[in-house]
Amino acid sequence: MIKQPEGFGFRRRRAQVGAAPGSFTPPTEVVEPVVRVMTWNVEELDEREIEVEDLGREHPVDGRLRWVDVQGLGDGTEISKLVDSHGLHPLAVADVVNIGQRPKAESYGEEWFLVLRMAGLEGDSLSFEQISLFLLDGMVISFQERPGDCLEPLRERIRRGGKRLRANGSEYLAVMILDAIVDGYFPVLEQFGEILEDLETTVVARPTAEVLERIYAIKRELLTFRRSVWPLRETLSQLIRDEALSDDVHPYLRDVADHVSQVSDIVETYREISASFVDVYLSSVSQRTNETMRVLTVIATIFIPLTFVAGVYGMNFDTSLPGNLPELALPYGYFIFWGVCALMGVGLVFLFRHLGWLGGGDES
Amino acid sequence: MIKQPEGFGFRRRRAQVGAAPGSFTPPTEVVEPVVRVMTWNVEELDEREIEVEDLGREHPVDGRLRWVDVQGLGDGTEISKLVDSHGLHPLAVADVVNIGQRPKAESYGEEWFLVLRMAGLEGDSLSFEQISLFLLDGMVISFQERPGDCLEPLRERIRRGGKRLRANGSEYLAVMILDAIVDGYFPVLEQFGEILEDLETTVVARPTAEVLERIYAIKRELLTFRRSVWPLRETLSQLIRDEALSDDVHPYLRDVADHVSQVSDIVETYREISASFVDVYLSSVSQRTNETMRVLTVIATIFIPLTFVAGVYGMNFDTSLPGNLPELALPYGYFIFWGVCALMGVGLVFLFRHLGWLGGGDES
Amino acid sequence: MIKQPEGFGFRRRRAQVGAAPGSFTPPTEVVEPVVRVMTWNVEELDEREIEVEDLGREHPVDGRLRWVDVQGLGDGTEISKLVDSHGLHPLAVADVVNIGQRPKAESYGEEWFLVLRMAGLEGDSLSFEQISLFLLDGMVISFQERPGDCLEPLRERIRRGGKRLRANGSEYLAVMILDAIVDGYFPVLEQFGEILEDLETTVVARPTAEVLERIYAIKRELLTFRRSVWPLRETLSQLIRDEALSDDVHPYLRDVADHVSQVSDIVETYREISASFVDVYLSSVSQRTNETMRVLTVIATIFIPLTFVAGVYGMNFDTSLPGNLPELALPYGYFIFWGVCALMGVGLVFLFRHLGWLGGGDES
Amino acid sequence: MIKQPEGFGFRRRRAQVGAAPGSFTPPTEVVEPVVRVMTWNVEELDEREIEVEDLGREHPVDGRLRWVDVQGLGDGTEISKLVDSHGLHPLAVADVVNIGQRPKAESYGEEWFLVLRMAGLEGDSLSFEQISLFLLDGMVISFQERPGDCLEPLRERIRRGGKRLRANGSEYLAVMILDAIVDGYFPVLEQFGEILEDLETTVVARPTAEVLERIYAIKRELLTFRRSVWPLRETLSQLIRDEALSDDVHPYLRDVADHVSQVSDIVETYREISASFVDVYLSSVSQRTNETMRVLTVIATIFIPLTFVAGVYGMNFDTSLPGNLPELALPYGYFIFWGVCALMGVGLVFLFRHLGWLGGGDES
Amino acid sequence: MIKQPEGFGFRRRRAQVGAAPGSFTPPTEVVEPVVRVMTWNVEELDEREIEVEDLGREHPVDGRLRWVDVQGLGDGTEISKLVDSHGLHPLAVADVVNIGQRPKAESYGEEWFLVLRMAGLEGDSLSFEQISLFLLDGMVISFQERPGDCLEPLRERIRRGGKRLRANGSEYLAVMILDAIVDGYFPVLEQFGEILEDLETTVVARPTAEVLERIYAIKRELLTFRRSVWPLRETLSQLIRDEALSDDVHPYLRDVADHVSQVSDIVETYREISASFVDVYLSSVSQRTNETMRVLTVIATIFIPLTFVAGVYGMNFDTSLPGNLPELALPYGYFIFWGVCALMGVGLVFLFRHLGWLGGGDES
Repeated sequence: MIKQPEGFGFRRRRAQVGAAPGSFTPPTEVVEPVVRVMTWNVEELDEREIEVEDLGREHPVDGRLRWVDVQGLGDGTEISKLVDSHGLHPLAVADVVNIGQRPKAESYGEEWFLVLRMAGLEGDSLSFEQISLFLLDGMVISFQERPGDCLEPLRERIRRGGKRLRANGSEYLAVMILDAIVDGYFPVLEQFGEILEDLETTVVARPTAEVLERIYAIKRELLTFRRSVWPLRETLSQLIRDEALSDDVHPYLRDVADHVSQVSDIVETYREISASFVDVYLSSVSQRTNETMRVLTVIATIFIPLTFVAGVYGMNFDTSLPGNLPELALPYGYFIFWGVCALMGVGLVFLFRHLGWLGGGDES
Repeated sequence: MIKQPEGFGFRRRRAQVGAAPGSFTPPTEVVEPVVRVMTWNVEELDEREIEVEDLGREHPVDGRLRWVDVQGLGDGTEISKLVDSHGLHPLAVADVVNIGQRPKAESYGEEWFLVLRMAGLEGDSLSFEQISLFLLDGMVISFQERPGDCLEPLRERIRRGGKRLRANGSEYLAVMILDAIVDGYFPVLEQFGEILEDLETTVVARPTAEVLERIYAIKRELLTFRRSVWPLRETLSQLIRDEALSDDVHPYLRDVADHVSQVSDIVETYREISASFVDVYLSSVSQRTNETMRVLTVIATIFIPLTFVAGVYGMNFDTSLPGNLPELALPYGYFIFWGVCALMGVGLVFLFRHLGWLGGGDES
Repeated sequence: MIKQPEGFGFRRRRAQVGAAPGSFTPPTEVVEPVVRVMTWNVEELDEREIEVEDLGREHPVDGRLRWVDVQGLGDGTEISKLVDSHGLHPLAVADVVNIGQRPKAESYGEEWFLVLRMAGLEGDSLSFEQISLFLLDGMVISFQERPGDCLEPLRERIRRGGKRLRANGSEYLAVMILDAIVDGYFPVLEQFGEILEDLETTVVARPTAEVLERIYAIKRELLTFRRSVWPLRETLSQLIRDEALSDDVHPYLRDVADHVSQVSDIVETYREISASFVDVYLSSVSQRTNETMRVLTVIATIFIPLTFVAGVYGMNFDTSLPGNLPELALPYGYFIFWGVCALMGVGLVFLFRHLGWLGGGDES
Repeated sequence: MIKQPEGFGFRRRRAQVGAAPGSFTPPTEVVEPVVRVMTWNVEELDEREIEVEDLGREHPVDGRLRWVDVQGLGDGTEISKLVDSHGLHPLAVADVVNIGQRPKAESYGEEWFLVLRMAGLEGDSLSFEQISLFLLDGMVISFQERPGDCLEPLRERIRRGGKRLRANGSEYLAVMILDAIVDGYFPVLEQFGEILEDLETTVVARPTAEVLERIYAIKRELLTFRRSVWPLRETLSQLIRDEALSDDVHPYLRDVADHVSQVSDIVETYREISASFVDVYLSSVSQRTNETMRVLTVIATIFIPLTFVAGVYGMNFDTSLPGNLPELALPYGYFIFWGVCALMGVGLVFLFRHLGWLGGGDES
Repeated sequence: MIKQPEGFGFRRRRAQVGAAPGSFTPPTEVVEPVVRVMTWNVEELDEREIEVEDLGREHPVDGRLRWVDVQGLGDGTEISKLVDSHGLHPLAVADVVNIGQRPKAESYGEEWFLVLRMAGLEGDSLSFEQISLFLLDGMVISFQERPGDCLEPLRERIRRGGKRLRANGSEYLAVMILDAIVDGYFPVLEQFGEILEDLETTVVARPTAEVLERIYAIKRELLTFRRSVWPLRETLSQLIRDEALSDDVHPYLRDVADHVSQVSDIVETYREISASFVDVYLSSVSQRTNETMRVLTVIATIFIPLTFVAGVYGMNFDTSLPGNLPELALPYGYFIFWGVCALMGVGLVFLFRHLGWLGGGDES
């Protein structure tokens, strides 16, 4: 089965063709939203879980920073109500619900809207989850496809009262979320690295069709990975160029951009490595054909002449006439025959050894 | 048969070499135009079908928005009359009739002229239809090659009185048409995805020449798709950069541009996947050669030595002389012979099993 | 024989190494120039043929447009006299005579100098002819390598009194010449398309070495084509950016640029198609090897065991001793032998049919 | 084993996912730092080794230039104290400790922070060591992963009192360090060149699987090298564009940039060469298969017909009946038989020689 | 042996790692410098040879143009003295001596410094020689690695009193030198063209390993060529953009840039052609394997069944029992046997002819 390049167009919840932009199709699989609200300033932190229906009532509080985190998108209707209650742009809200967007950063007036993709592993195969961020003044709203994410350590830091996190505004928080998501790519890449190591030994030792399929599977996953990371570079340089963002945030954004470059580098390297595996695979198959052929040739080259000789002495020439098969009338002629056969065999074996044909796979 | 990259140069209706620019060749296949005119404001909608001869009389109406939709280009003469009646640029009108243009956006003074390509499927194979848009003040004129399009849902929304559609001007309408056309690419891509899935299982199981042809057919169709989508990116960023377009339209244009990026991503991914199928195909053929060879080698390696042995005991050495073929005079020598043959055969089978040669295609 | 990439460096008439720039080598093959002068305004047209010696006397006439068309370059000396008589730049004149230049547009003060390449077919193979244009105020001078071109329809339009052509200045005329040259690429590409179609059926059916050579020949011709078209894009955008050219000409230039893009698209598509043919060719050869191997394997696998069995019953064990070849003493043993052989053969044929090996080329 | 692309993501000491930016993970392998401080002006030089704990006390001295060189990063805690004592940016300090960064140049206000990668060879395989530079006013602080570097000749020049080094400021010193690091790439490349030369002879003579592995190993190392050098180009042009750097340093920076271009050129050339080795390898394997096949064919083609003939004369037709195997009753028929065999053999050998099949590997 | 990409890093005379920039290593092979000084104005020309020690005394003369041409670099010490006597930048002088630089143009204040590479052929293989130019006011100093160059025709033109050369300043002279060097690339490319033509016929007719090596050798030389030409494009556009150069020189610079583009085009075309030769080579090898296989298959398919039949009639069934080998007792049974064999053989030959297998290499 082709692993469909996940999230690019096919797991994408897409509005009907010709539907109004900003509209969305109810998802086939409804994940009930869990909404967690954290509100803090330097001194104190308030954390609670609310109903999704109350989402519209969570507004920024003066002198505090609020992070509303929605995990699970429900059927999208509750979320679309945010358009009115928080004045978000309907197109942005539609992008939240129609998952499978490319990473991007868009500014609607004061508000920034970010789409990102969190990498995860389901068993051995790569999965991505879309996370969308609205960056308002004094508040960050994040939407995830389903519960569970790589942001728990960040929440811990907020709870523990991390100085910078507590003192800085919503922009800093958003960059920290970005940072956590990008850092979450590394463990996934590490697992890819292990799979590649594993494949490398297999591809030479046992170049089966199944190995080729695994190589192409990882190539496709790296392609998906790349398409998730590549637009991120542009997204980040867009944010870095933006003059409305405070200068304090810039070094952190550059730091994230740096990590994205590292991720891209690793992905490209892995892509080249997996491409080289295809070559190795094809060459292994050729090698095996060559070896098979060599076995055949060795056997045939030794026995075909011998069979001919045996055939000769099976001929029915009239031995009573002169000159016909005099060997047959030799005492111990049979043993001489075997001697000649042995000599021919040994000679050919030496020849093949000289040609380096008898070392098996190790030699060639 | 090579599927000619449709619409690029060959199905293009082209003026004669050296003909005046703006002139056109009468098409070989005349599709009688069907003209539908929709006129509306927020309160009411008037929809009617007119004769193509009356096209010149449909002018913008104050306070209303008019969409003149021409499906079928006739022999081009009626359409070329629009140059005078609406003051359109003759080169743009020629582009309408000489189908097979690349997607593009051109501004002639106040008026924008857009060429787009709608994707469709005729059976299993991709087809494109050129749609040209004139974006005037208060009016949009669209030309299609033939009746039938992906804009029906959009017309439904106008009829149902979609608020934004009814209240906004011609620019918003044009962007909605763009949006519908780009959204129309997704179902086509989905079908490509299914064909690729289908091919994947086939290419390993039965790597016939016909499979290779299908792979190349889809590669060529993806190439055509790509050449239709690629210029669209530039077209859209040209529109986005244009300062004459109202700011309200910008988020919608960016949304369309986003979808175009997604389409490009999918097309590129599919291109890489189909390219990998060629590798898989070639490797399957090599594998099969290897397997064929192995069967031959196994059979030959087992029976050639045995045949030699049988030949030996068919020799006519004079057994009355000493030392000549004493085995022939053994009681049950024949059974001993079979025993030796069986031993050799079993030994070789064990050897081949050890080499992993007897597992067939699954093993290697 | 390698078809030398025509016109790039080798058919180029090149000045000696170290010669003064603007000098030229007398051509090896002298084509006597034929000079035709057309002079017109809206009302009337004067057309005549003059001697190349009188070239220097043809100056622009007030209120009229003059097109001096020189077909054939002679030994270059007459042409180089134009430097003085019309004040052309010597480097530009040298480019006219030293054919094999890349397409380019250069402005020397007021005057524009264009080098273009007309495509033609000599038999099945592509040929290019350099055409150079001097665009002066009120006059266009064109130089071609030899008589015969794709501009005749343009001249006809001038003669018939085409309104726009008659009323507009030298810039419009130059753009029309450009347009005619670019339109002349399409029939050549159409022929390439037919050759490719032809090749496609052949490459699968009869993958001979000669087919591979034809594929590479067309690949090289497409490469040459590409190198003639690619610089044209830049040339045109240079002209489009130039603010000295009148605005009226711009839409026509963009139209030509559009056609150049289409030509590039087709050329790239054809290049990809011909590249895929190489893959198909290689895979066909592999397939044929596989089929040959399969025939050998089928024959050998059927007959080698049978030969062994026949050999067994040719052994000379002493049948008077017990247990030695009792089958030989069976009545109808010979028919039993044939029965066993037939059974083995039929069994193997069934096995091979099951493996799909007996369908020949169609199966795999 | 896949040689993990060293330093890109995996030998990288990485902060925990979600950890605060600027934090770092204690390294698994602690290298005790050795700190050397050189302070000089035109007249005198003071060089001493200090404890890492005293690092914070080494501040710039008026009228002198100070180079603090830290070799080994310890557990990172001592180094992180520098944030406060010298006012360095915490993100930059984290980059020092979390090794495996890409080469980059970042300016934090007045201070420049550079990350570079020194190339070395451990046995035959490439290793990189990160060196980070803080470029302050009157002082350069450098951090290396472990003792030992390619900067000793530079230190010697300082000690010997090199005029330019002694008289210039910290920027010149930093550029000299850059220069020394880039020059250190050349010996490593030279060794790569030797390995490639070595491989070239081997790949044709003995195309074993182990050779293919070595080719891919060097391809991967060149890939790593490239990823270390590529960002350096941008880093340098960033420094060159920076207007805060004094003009005196510019020619030296351009000189270093020039060397980086040369390194890139060599790396790209080597990459192309090693890619061509893969082709040569595959073609060698094909050649060997062809040769093996030819041996088989020659032997089989000679002996199979002969065996048939021998079989014919072993038939038991009743020679007492007329026309049955009259040859058997010929005197010296046996010798005639051998003569015919010899003739056939010699004829085939001549045929094969004519086909160029008997020249072994040299011929084809 | 790998032909080391000449001049890139390995034949480069390189300063020691860590040496002061501007320093150089004494060359291993000392070529004694020959210094020729030409001084002229419109009326007269003075040409003489001087000792290298007197180099420092040759300063520009008012109202005249001087060209100091140094062929051979000696041990570099005499040349390095120029730093003081002419005020040249030490880094530039170091680039003169440390040969193997990339083509570049650098301006140090008033003075321009150019590094170029002259192409030549030593036997069949490409060689490059570095030529460095200092472009001062009223004087050009050129340095070459060794005597002999492609500038003799230029000197002849100066001697013959070429008007433009005599009247123009040092900039025009420098551009003429550039022009001569670039024109010198064409004969080298012509020779490459001939080698490629030669290879093309060989690669199909006799695809030996030695041919593959020659293909890769020329690929590497084209790579080297490309790396020498590519930076030249940038160098020239840098000079063209420079506003300090007089306008008169611009058309000539553009002319040189044009030639460089042509050279690049030819090199790229040749690279594609030589890459296609690798494909042709591999396909020829496959074809040959297929042919070898076919010979084997034809022989084996004809004789294996015949051998079986012969074996059958060699069986020792007791013919005195009924039904056992009755054919043996037929009069002329032997001739019937031969008839059957001949029929089978002829039938198979017809079958193989039908399959197109007997046409040898021409057929497939």
